[in-house]
Amino acid sequence: MGTIVKRKIVNDPVYGFINIPTPFLLDIIDHPWFQRLRHIRQLGFAYLVYPGANHTRLQHAMGAMHLMEQAIESLRGKGQDISDHEAESAMAAMLLHDIGHGPFSHSLESAVIGDMPHETLSLWFMEELNRQFDHKLDTAIAIFRGEYPKRFLCQLVSSQLDVDRMDYLRRDSFFSGVVEGAIGSDRIIKMIDVYHDELVVEAKGIYSIEHFLIARRFMYWQVYLHKTGIAADNLLSGILRRARYLAQRKVHLPATDALRYFLYDYKPGCGDTPAGRRTVLGHFAMLDDDDICCAVKGWQTHADPILSRLCRQMTGRKLFRIKVQSTPFEKSTVDSYVAHTAAQYGISEEDAARYFVHTGRLSNNAYKNEGDERIKILADRRPVDLATASDMEHLSGLTKENEKYFICFPKDIYILL
Amino acid sequence: MGTIVKRKIVNDPVYGFINIPTPFLLDIIDHPWFQRLRHIRQLGFAYLVYPGANHTRLQHAMGAMHLMEQAIESLRGKGQDISDHEAESAMAAMLLHDIGHGPFSHSLESAVIGDMPHETLSLWFMEELNRQFDHKLDTAIAIFRGEYPKRFLCQLVSSQLDVDRMDYLRRDSFFSGVVEGAIGSDRIIKMIDVYHDELVVEAKGIYSIEHFLIARRFMYWQVYLHKTGIAADNLLSGILRRARYLAQRKVHLPATDALRYFLYDYKPGCGDTPAGRRTVLGHFAMLDDDDICCAVKGWQTHADPILSRLCRQMTGRKLFRIKVQSTPFEKSTVDSYVAHTAAQYGISEEDAARYFVHTGRLSNNAYKNEGDERIKILADRRPVDLATASDMEHLSGLTKENEKYFICFPKDIYILL
Amino acid sequence: MGTIVKRKIVNDPVYGFINIPTPFLLDIIDHPWFQRLRHIRQLGFAYLVYPGANHTRLQHAMGAMHLMEQAIESLRGKGQDISDHEAESAMAAMLLHDIGHGPFSHSLESAVIGDMPHETLSLWFMEELNRQFDHKLDTAIAIFRGEYPKRFLCQLVSSQLDVDRMDYLRRDSFFSGVVEGAIGSDRIIKMIDVYHDELVVEAKGIYSIEHFLIARRFMYWQVYLHKTGIAADNLLSGILRRARYLAQRKVHLPATDALRYFLYDYKPGCGDTPAGRRTVLGHFAMLDDDDICCAVKGWQTHADPILSRLCRQMTGRKLFRIKVQSTPFEKSTVDSYVAHTAAQYGISEEDAARYFVHTGRLSNNAYKNEGDERIKILADRRPVDLATASDMEHLSGLTKENEKYFICFPKDIYILL
Amino acid sequence: MGTIVKRKIVNDPVYGFINIPTPFLLDIIDHPWFQRLRHIRQLGFAYLVYPGANHTRLQHAMGAMHLMEQAIESLRGKGQDISDHEAESAMAAMLLHDIGHGPFSHSLESAVIGDMPHETLSLWFMEELNRQFDHKLDTAIAIFRGEYPKRFLCQLVSSQLDVDRMDYLRRDSFFSGVVEGAIGSDRIIKMIDVYHDELVVEAKGIYSIEHFLIARRFMYWQVYLHKTGIAADNLLSGILRRARYLAQRKVHLPATDALRYFLYDYKPGCGDTPAGRRTVLGHFAMLDDDDICCAVKGWQTHADPILSRLCRQMTGRKLFRIKVQSTPFEKSTVDSYVAHTAAQYGISEEDAARYFVHTGRLSNNAYKNEGDERIKILADRRPVDLATASDMEHLSGLTKENEKYFICFPKDIYILL
Repeated sequence: MGTIVKRKIVNDPVYGFINIPTPFLLDIIDHPWFQRLRHIRQLGFAYLVYPGANHTRLQHAMGAMHLMEQAIESLRGKGQDISDHEAESAMAAMLLHDIGHGPFSHSLESAVIGDMPHETLSLWFMEELNRQFDHKLDTAIAIFRGEYPKRFLCQLVSSQLDVDRMDYLRRDSFFSGVVEGAIGSDRIIKMIDVYHDELVVEAKGIYSIEHFLIARRFMYWQVYLHKTGIAADNLLSGILRRARYLAQRKVHLPATDALRYFLYDYKPGCGDTPAGRRTVLGHFAMLDDDDICCAVKGWQTHADPILSRLCRQMTGRKLFRIKVQSTPFEKSTVDSYVAHTAAQYGISEEDAARYFVHTGRLSNNAYKNEGDERIKILADRRPVDLATASDMEHLSGLTKENEKYFICFPKDIYILL
Repeated sequence: MGTIVKRKIVNDPVYGFINIPTPFLLDIIDHPWFQRLRHIRQLGFAYLVYPGANHTRLQHAMGAMHLMEQAIESLRGKGQDISDHEAESAMAAMLLHDIGHGPFSHSLESAVIGDMPHETLSLWFMEELNRQFDHKLDTAIAIFRGEYPKRFLCQLVSSQLDVDRMDYLRRDSFFSGVVEGAIGSDRIIKMIDVYHDELVVEAKGIYSIEHFLIARRFMYWQVYLHKTGIAADNLLSGILRRARYLAQRKVHLPATDALRYFLYDYKPGCGDTPAGRRTVLGHFAMLDDDDICCAVKGWQTHADPILSRLCRQMTGRKLFRIKVQSTPFEKSTVDSYVAHTAAQYGISEEDAARYFVHTGRLSNNAYKNEGDERIKILADRRPVDLATASDMEHLSGLTKENEKYFICFPKDIYILL
Repeated sequence: MGTIVKRKIVNDPVYGFINIPTPFLLDIIDHPWFQRLRHIRQLGFAYLVYPGANHTRLQHAMGAMHLMEQAIESLRGKGQDISDHEAESAMAAMLLHDIGHGPFSHSLESAVIGDMPHETLSLWFMEELNRQFDHKLDTAIAIFRGEYPKRFLCQLVSSQLDVDRMDYLRRDSFFSGVVEGAIGSDRIIKMIDVYHDELVVEAKGIYSIEHFLIARRFMYWQVYLHKTGIAADNLLSGILRRARYLAQRKVHLPATDALRYFLYDYKPGCGDTPAGRRTVLGHFAMLDDDDICCAVKGWQTHADPILSRLCRQMTGRKLFRIKVQSTPFEKSTVDSYVAHTAAQYGISEEDAARYFVHTGRLSNNAYKNEGDERIKILADRRPVDLATASDMEHLSGLTKENEKYFICFPKDIYILL
Repeated sequence: MGTIVKRKIVNDPVYGFINIPTPFLLDIIDHPWFQRLRHIRQLGFAYLVYPGANHTRLQHAMGAMHLMEQAIESLRGKGQDISDHEAESAMAAMLLHDIGHGPFSHSLESAVIGDMPHETLSLWFMEELNRQFDHKLDTAIAIFRGEYPKRFLCQLVSSQLDVDRMDYLRRDSFFSGVVEGAIGSDRIIKMIDVYHDELVVEAKGIYSIEHFLIARRFMYWQVYLHKTGIAADNLLSGILRRARYLAQRKVHLPATDALRYFLYDYKPGCGDTPAGRRTVLGHFAMLDDDDICCAVKGWQTHADPILSRLCRQMTGRKLFRIKVQSTPFEKSTVDSYVAHTAAQYGISEEDAARYFVHTGRLSNNAYKNEGDERIKILADRRPVDLATASDMEHLSGLTKENEKYFICFPKDIYILL
């Protein structure tokens, strides 16, 4: 993308063109740590269900920067004072807000780097970049951490109405082909305003906000928590857990250098010292979807029967069967699947439970109608909570975190329950 | 559209192309009564707010026919037996379901032909067309009236999940540019099925249905019940009421023949006899948006001060100011506006109330969670009510008919209340 | 559109939202002369072929203003100095560039006001508006007339690469559903630049320009010169010519005041004096598609057999049959159609030739590779002609004005030739 | 995509939904050889320029199958007799037409498997699949080889108007965001017909065909032959060539098993025997973009200075600088770049020429106006060549193969020429 240097405009199928407004933002984009996001899919395994969903975290980061530019333009047009440095910093914060994501984050965090969630890593990357860029990211980091005095800038980066969500809903909807998730980001951005440094929405924008919340809920159930994706996540978690288990016992596993580090050498707490943190980041920055996919492909023929079986299931898309219900699965049910799996595969129940039978909780990440997190509507020149402004009762439905529970297990395990 | 005879395919910006599958359907389309729908806007005055909303009832009728074709194809693909005659009849029913709409229906019905709602006129037109077409519309009429044994065909024509709504939401959203109303008609149509002759939706389509209901509600508040449109409707109602009043007193009003009939000659009950009905239909079939718009434009300089003032307000888009609240306006408030208007314009309070101050009730036409009207979801091979199948509480919000009340009055009337 | 006053943002299905950047531009939009464009279809009779093509000249004018705003923003971003007044004036010029269009311009100009082409009327309207707006349109008029020193502003308004064409191609393509006419206006606008006050295109934009020229040619043959539209144009010309003929002989014709003026009172040269011009403009400003459509509908039963026959043909869409070939039709062919028509209809050959048999020439309005009109490409920092810069030979094809000839005649006239 | 088994409908952002009409087609899609196409990008390195262009060969194959289904439906609607087996076979041929593509095919073929172009491999895969599927692919293979009696089926698979091109133009345009490449595949498919078993286009479709050819040319210059992509292709070719060189000399290179085979063990001619062919296919079927990307990432620190330099250039996107002109570069110019590079990098001129300085020819793959390959237009019920039917001269431009020549070399090499 050396070409970007010259033209600073990038084609984007969602918005048409994305402008890269300042040289510093271009420097961030050109940094190898940012470029690695080209090889990390935004939606992990969703491409197994939605073949178009191969879009990357790089695309999302640039899209979110673009919406931030539009939001700032909209607010300036309404008389809000935002300096060029603040604008650039807010855009930088959007570029970097997900920089700490690794490949298939859910699985990776679940199986290997549970002590380093991507939010932590994003901050570490930003701080390290800040050093490299001579502290030009100070304001961006303050905004990202929610500590900048102009709170609305922080809220545009991270809140229940941030440009992050606006871009990912539109983008994920676009690439998956699930049109119901398409939101009117243009309209929302034209409706936002600032009241006493807080982000608010003009009263006439209330339906757009409701639509936005509904679309988000739709995408959760239809895409983000799609059964097949959950099944694949859990399968990969098992693979990585098994690989890590073998690696810790010095079993040889073909892997790229970066992946090898996390299987063999990484230990929780490695990032606690400055030097250790640089080591972790150095390897993490080399890790992307390709390392994982190659490893799984290669481990199909590994001598360890559990690892190779799991990898063959993944590559052959014999994903787990998954059941979803509104209450947790009973222990006896889980035990029964574990026992059957152990018997059928000739493995211990411990291994069956660890690698082949998974349960968990799914949540649609509902609108939080609590305290400062609430979306505010500007009615009669005063901000009121969305739930108050909305005269529709149904918002109560959106505010309730909806829980479901799943159990997944190999497709060749059948139990009459 | 003689060209259609040859190619039987029509460009449609919403769906790409619309196929006219049978010669009989083409005959219906070519009939002058159908063609008049080219000159009747689907959304009345919405074009004053959304300049793109100039699409016509002809476009909607053809779009609804197209979705019916797709729905039938989908159901046949699932093994449902639908004969070619039934398919053609269901499509004919869609072409004709709104044939009885006149120009700016709300105003026209409110001011002139209150005894002939468009549903009645649609049926009269269909029956007369049935005579002209040698009873080839028997089945279409039975389906339209909801009396055909295969109930799912009737439900596709008219129910809470009919192709009428699917087309108008997508189409009105498309032309108004209000993207939030765009629904996934493709997905919904792929999800419908039939159970014991009733229309049902597959369980995994539940989110699409919820999205559909939300999008519809969105369009109600953002477009169909937009304040400016309501204000214009009421203004035109006043104009037509005044014109009719003058006409009944033999005052001369420039108007086309068709409009003149309804101002001067038409009387409630005219359609009660076969001969009378033919007279009514003959004139009604000549009436479209153009007659109304020309009349209003011409009456701006009429000698009657009330008529000319109203018409100048309309043409100069000095529409009524409108206030909306969740409870009915008190009589004292209304009286106060009436009194001020009468005083300021030098007219009687009776005229002020009749032509310049209007109140009314707006309803978002919510999902009706009652009896047979409910949308049915096919869960575990048995149909259950949408409200039961949906484990989201918020549906309760959608089922509550949301009411608002408005008052509108001339923009130059100011009252401190 | 009183609402616009408040929000100054308008939904547009083509661009999403259109911003109205200054109060003066809003004043222009709110002027009744501009608002009348709501009732004049951009594409005349194209809606007979493409049912979606009901979009109006108002939409196009606002779209062109929007693209002008984008073009100015793009040029300013490249360092071009454009004052706020110049920007507003260029946008005003776009709003008003077609203000002189009447309903179904081709027919109207052909039959009635041949001495006042719409370009002339546009200028008259602009000059009159300039008086009303205290000469705030001086610069806009200079730009519109091509007399403003910064020639690129004039070229953005009117040249072979103006925003007029960019908007109408995208818009006409959008509403007709003819996707092949969709041009990449975003890309073109990002590629334009200024060299010595002349509009140029960056070298890498050359393919976009070629695509633009091809798309335009496509739209000419597929939409603008569609046979059915040509047939309808000629039919309406005949109707208006006959009506004018009858009116000049004092025959009574039902018509609105505005149309009546042009049939009975208007004489070529009426606009030569200031007073006369105001009279003409006053009536012309009251004339729109509705007047014409109502008149044609009403004249179907007129006593004059020629007028009523023509009007019934139009309303019943028994349009002329039309033949197109690459050479002019021979006089003997035309004479033969005239003779047959006269005989069959029992009218004089003169009337047959005047009202029922029409010939003419169609031209695709090709790229003019001549002198100052050429599009310039900036190659190696120097402007060269598009034809030179393009190393593709095929441009030669685009530069040749492609001519076709048509003859049209009633569908019930058959001749073996 | 186990889910597909159940629903047989796949979301596709380009067409909305893609139907998988028969169980056999689903079996093909579920085959691991087909599924590997999920990990091979359709456009190779275009994602470096167009971040959205991450779509895969799997998506294209399914899209092409979908268009084939539509084309067959269209032809059947015009009375063409096509059996269900023929239809399924033609769709199978589309699914498999690119099955032989490897990762970054141009580079791979240029550097490693020059004797096995992807067309050859596609046929080998199809033949092997035919064995696995009990010869159910006989007809599909005959159609793919152009040997099936109903020539129009062969032409739909491979000709100058095949569904392959229709899908890739629309799809590549969609994902790259280069709207100018969007073609009207719907319109084209409605315009095709069959005359004496040959594919023809109805006369009124001629503009759509011209538009299609222009759009294709546009995509060639704007996307397929984009300088950055060419530079990356040549860089990867050099990397693979160097890796192969080192491998043949027993130097250790970290690589996945599949890639290792092609670097160390594969020899031209390996596929000449049945057993050898199966070995080649077995390894090739395990090779995808991920293997290449991981290898390049890992080789950045390899001890061989040439390999590691090339890989660092790729990963850091310090791609070659590239110059394009309309005549071949002179030998003296090439020599000069080679000499400078050798001197600056301290390597032999042979290595400089082999790995760092590349020249070549670019061709836009123009419309071939020759013999049987011509597109035929059905004019007056007889097929004529497109060039004859088109009365536009510019087609001559499209028929001329347009050649350009490039030289590329490292960005840090500067020469005054």
